[in-house]
Amino acid sequence: MSDLEIFGVPGSLRKNAYSLGLLRAAQELAPKDMHIEVADIRAFPVFNQDDEDHPPEPVRVFQEKARAAHAILFSLNEHNYGLSAAEKNALDWGSRPYPKSAWNGKPAGIMSASIGMIGGARAQYELRQSMVFLNMFPINRPEVIVPFAAQKFDANGRLTDETSRKFISDHLTELARFTRVLLRIP
Amino acid sequence: MSDLEIFGVPGSLRKNAYSLGLLRAAQELAPKDMHIEVADIRAFPVFNQDDEDHPPEPVRVFQEKARAAHAILFSLNEHNYGLSAAEKNALDWGSRPYPKSAWNGKPAGIMSASIGMIGGARAQYELRQSMVFLNMFPINRPEVIVPFAAQKFDANGRLTDETSRKFISDHLTELARFTRVLLRIP
Amino acid sequence: MSDLEIFGVPGSLRKNAYSLGLLRAAQELAPKDMHIEVADIRAFPVFNQDDEDHPPEPVRVFQEKARAAHAILFSLNEHNYGLSAAEKNALDWGSRPYPKSAWNGKPAGIMSASIGMIGGARAQYELRQSMVFLNMFPINRPEVIVPFAAQKFDANGRLTDETSRKFISDHLTELARFTRVLLRIP
Amino acid sequence: MSDLEIFGVPGSLRKNAYSLGLLRAAQELAPKDMHIEVADIRAFPVFNQDDEDHPPEPVRVFQEKARAAHAILFSLNEHNYGLSAAEKNALDWGSRPYPKSAWNGKPAGIMSASIGMIGGARAQYELRQSMVFLNMFPINRPEVIVPFAAQKFDANGRLTDETSRKFISDHLTELARFTRVLLRIP
Repeated sequence: MSDLEIFGVPGSLRKNAYSLGLLRAAQELAPKDMHIEVADIRAFPVFNQDDEDHPPEPVRVFQEKARAAHAILFSLNEHNYGLSAAEKNALDWGSRPYPKSAWNGKPAGIMSASIGMIGGARAQYELRQSMVFLNMFPINRPEVIVPFAAQKFDANGRLTDETSRKFISDHLTELARFTRVLLRIP
Repeated sequence: MSDLEIFGVPGSLRKNAYSLGLLRAAQELAPKDMHIEVADIRAFPVFNQDDEDHPPEPVRVFQEKARAAHAILFSLNEHNYGLSAAEKNALDWGSRPYPKSAWNGKPAGIMSASIGMIGGARAQYELRQSMVFLNMFPINRPEVIVPFAAQKFDANGRLTDETSRKFISDHLTELARFTRVLLRIP
Repeated sequence: MSDLEIFGVPGSLRKNAYSLGLLRAAQELAPKDMHIEVADIRAFPVFNQDDEDHPPEPVRVFQEKARAAHAILFSLNEHNYGLSAAEKNALDWGSRPYPKSAWNGKPAGIMSASIGMIGGARAQYELRQSMVFLNMFPINRPEVIVPFAAQKFDANGRLTDETSRKFISDHLTELARFTRVLLRIP
Repeated sequence: MSDLEIFGVPGSLRKNAYSLGLLRAAQELAPKDMHIEVADIRAFPVFNQDDEDHPPEPVRVFQEKARAAHAILFSLNEHNYGLSAAEKNALDWGSRPYPKSAWNGKPAGIMSASIGMIGGARAQYELRQSMVFLNMFPINRPEVIVPFAAQKFDANGRLTDETSRKFISDHLTELARFTRVLLRIP
C-alpha cells in the first residue's frame, strides 16, 4: 500500500493559532499510511490577479506542494462568521492561474476551531461552496468542529480535548479511505 | 438636509477591477445629498490578529474613514464562488480590535460584478452572513448584480450598461432613505 | 406609545416542538408594549404555485395575520442542516401571490433551538438569505441560538435555561427598538 | 457493465414545473447505461417528526425507491432564494427515521431552473449544505443552472435550449463516472 501525502493549510497567521494546533494534532493522529505537511502561508501578499502569472516565491512553493499532494486538509479559523482572509487568500492563490489550479479534483478534509460556541462551522460551509467551483471533493463525516477552543488546548498549544482528538482521528481515517477510492490508489 | 457620507470598499487590487468601475459609476450616479469616497486597500498586509493593536498606517486610515462614514458601500468581486481575499481582508481589518469595529451599527449597500453569469451574487450572501456578526444593516432592493461584466464596461473601465446603471442609481436612493431612517438623520 | 403586534412563526408540526417552546418563552418575556401571537401552521398543505391564487382557509388566515403585524418573530428548528420543510412552507405560502407578499418591508426577529451543538444556527442564515428577496429586515443582536435543547426545557416544554431566556429577552427589546425606528412608530 | 439506477427528485408540485422538464430532458439525454426514474412527491404531507415511524404510503414508496437507487438526481426550483418547500419536504422525509436515511452515502447530481437570471443557483448551495449532514456526495461539474427558463422550454414543457441540454448530458456523464468510482461498480 503506497503512502498518502496530505497538504495541510492553516487559516491564520498568528503564532499560536488554533488552526495550527489542529494541524499538529492531525500530524500526531494520522494513520500510519498518511503523511501530513503543513503549509507556510505567512509571507503571502494579498492576492492580486494582475500578478497571478508571476507569484512570489513562497506562493509558488505553496502551489507546487498543493499540486503534488494526494489530498488537502484545511484547518480553519472563523473571522466575522466567515473564512479568515488568510485562508481565503491561500485558497485563491492556489487556484490560479486558471486552469492550472492546484486544487482541481483533489479530495479534502476540513477542521475548524473557534473560541465561541459554533466552533468555526460557518466558515466550513463557505469553504465547501468554493470547493464546487474548484472541483474539490470534501468528505462529510465526522465533521471536526471545535468550539470553546480556549479550553481545549494546553499552554503549549497542544490539543488536549479527547473528544476533539477522536473526531480528528476518525476524520483522517475517512479521508484516507475516500482518497484511495476516489483516486484509485491501492 | 445634511449630506450623507458613504465609504466605498472595493474587492480587488487589480488596476482595472470591475468592483472599482462599479464604485466610480456609483460616484457619478449618487443622489445630490450623498458623497462617496472610495477606500484605498492596496497596501494592506494579510490580517494577522497578533498585529491588530498596531495596524499599519494605511489600515489605520481606512478604519478611521470607515468609522466616520454614515454608511458603507461594498463593491465585490467573486473569487472561487466567495468573497475575494482582498475584500474579506479589508472587512476583517476594519472589524478589529473588538469591540472597536468600524462597522458596528452601520447601514450598507452591496454591489457586485463578475465575468460569469451569476454576477458575484454568491459573494453577496457571504458578506451578508458576516454582517450579522458585525451588526451591519444591509439594504435589500434592488440588488446590484452585474453578470457578463466584460461586455458592460468600455475600454476606459466606465460602466456603460444602462440597466446596471439604473440598478445602482435605485440602490443608492434606497441606501440614502434607509440610512436616514435607521440613523435618524434629518 | 402604541403597542407592537408581533406574529410568531414556528418551524415544526410536532406537539412538543422546541420552536414552540421558544415562542411561549418569548410571550412570557416580551416587553410590556409588545404582543406576540403564535401562528397555527399545522393544517397547511405543501405549497403549490398552481394554487397560490386560492389558498386554503388556514393559509389565508395566516397571510392576513402576517400582513397585519408590525414585525415577525421566526422560531426555527433545523432539519438536515437547513430550514425545516414546515418553516419554509409557511414562508413560501406567506410570500404569495407576488407582489402581495405578507413579509414585504417587515422587521424580523429570529430564534432557533436544536438538540445538537450548533443550535439551529445554519437554518438562521438560510432564512436570512430568503429575507433578501422578501425585503425583510432582520435584527442582528443578540442572536438567539439554543444548542443542546433537550437539557434546556422542562417536562412541560417550558424553557428553563436562564442564559437562553436572557438572550430572548434582549432580542425582543432590540426587535421593539428596531421596529419603532424602521416603521417610524412613536 | 451493470446499469446505473438513478432516482430523480423534482422540486415542485406544479403540473408544468421546470424542474420536471429538466428531469424529462435528463431521461432523454442519459447515457445508455443509466436509467432515471422520476419520483412522485405530489401526495406528501408536510414532514412531521411525530409521524416519522409511520410515514404515509406515498412517502414509504419514495423512501424505498431512493434507498434502492445507486445515485440521486435532484432537480430544483428556487423559491424566495432558497430550496422550495416541496423539495426540502421530500429531502426531510427521505432522511428519516434516523439512521435509516435513504440518502446516506449516495452520489448525487443537481440541476436547477428559474425564470430569473440566477437560475436557481442559490437553492443548489443550500442543498449541498444539507448533503453534508446526509453524507451524500454531489458532483461538481458542470453545474446545470438554467436561468430565464421561460425562454428555454417549448409549449409542451420540453427543454429546447441546446446549451442547457449539453450541460445536462455532461452532468450525467460525470455522475455515471463518479458513481462507479465511489461505489466501486464495474
